[in-house]
Amino acid sequence: MQNQKCGKFIVLEGLEGAGKTTAREAVLQALQAHGIERIEFTREPGGTPLAEKLRQLIKFGDGNEVISDKAELLMLYAARIQLVENVIRPALTCGKWVLGDRHDMSSQAYQGGGRQIDRTLLSTLRDTVLGDFKPHLTLYLDIDPELGLSRARSRGELDRIEQLQLDFFERTRARYLELVAADPNALLIDASQPIEQVASDVRSAVDNWLSTQD
Amino acid sequence: MQNQKCGKFIVLEGLEGAGKTTAREAVLQALQAHGIERIEFTREPGGTPLAEKLRQLIKFGDGNEVISDKAELLMLYAARIQLVENVIRPALTCGKWVLGDRHDMSSQAYQGGGRQIDRTLLSTLRDTVLGDFKPHLTLYLDIDPELGLSRARSRGELDRIEQLQLDFFERTRARYLELVAADPNALLIDASQPIEQVASDVRSAVDNWLSTQD
Repeated sequence: MQNQKCGKFIVLEGLEGAGKTTAREAVLQALQAHGIERIEFTREPGGTPLAEKLRQLIKFGDGNEVISDKAELLMLYAARIQLVENVIRPALTCGKWVLGDRHDMSSQAYQGGGRQIDRTLLSTLRDTVLGDFKPHLTLYLDIDPELGLSRARSRGELDRIEQLQLDFFERTRARYLELVAADPNALLIDASQPIEQVASDVRSAVDNWLSTQD
Repeated sequence: MQNQKCGKFIVLEGLEGAGKTTAREAVLQALQAHGIERIEFTREPGGTPLAEKLRQLIKFGDGNEVISDKAELLMLYAARIQLVENVIRPALTCGKWVLGDRHDMSSQAYQGGGRQIDRTLLSTLRDTVLGDFKPHLTLYLDIDPELGLSRARSRGELDRIEQLQLDFFERTRARYLELVAADPNALLIDASQPIEQVASDVRSAVDNWLSTQD
């Protein structure tokens, strides 16, 4: 039997209302145009039965109990390692590509920037839990929080995170920009443009990136 | 108004079937004999609505999904920090004493010894999440796992942890012994003795310890 080639892990990142759903379609088209057909979708937090239960607790809490920032962070990483070990790694190993709605950069941006959790704590936790596992490509959809949130709000009821104040999302965006600038495998897409242009930029970005891959 | 004195945090540790329930009564009697009446009980994992939900996931999982050792550990710490920040610290600050059924030493022993998770990872996580928060006194009820498990089994159905093999508990006990030996605030109680003797040893230990406290 021939050795099967491993798949790659592409992640979409960005604030609420940045257009990740549209971007996902665009990535999918670009991959299919390159003959990549075995693609698995994931979302974080979530993607396994346990991780989905944690997602509920993270997003909606439990009654009126105050959730400590550290507890939130630990639940996010618990959900993430479940997804990585039970879904993402096995898929990549058997040659599937994985297209993720959020991954570790979200924790660095939201918990680090938004919630202002110490950087060293975050990077220690990341290294401890994930080791050297990371996406092959991250597409960050950059949008002004005010615009993004107005889009998100028009979609319906807000969860515990979406109800936070604008300055939380301003700090989150600032950290995103910093992380993307420092990550050679991350690209910024201007998501404030009309939706067709965003989709077209995403397709081009993936297309260019694919042409550099073996 | 007079300055209120802070309470202290006493923890019971030990394998399944070591007799923590009996020991709890004995600690309570010793405290009450010293005029300490405002006592709050906690158990880990658990003790807040969110932490109790995490307890269910940790102890019984979700269907047939394999729970990664790291995910288990992160959920334990998420539950622990919720309990510490929302229950234990506030109680101590307002002058209550807290008597805990398990705390951090359980993670060090079960996840470090039993599951053989790397020591550095564990201590980093501990320091990162809990900082310098620790019990004033830990009573470790030492018992041979075979004896402890036979007692636990006679009580009814076993959870995900209790169903593990004997060597898991042998490693957990060995790590407990190591941790207690290295901790100036931990005492070993021989829990293989008849139950009345264990209770009496616990009362004496707490009694002696209280006489050294301000």
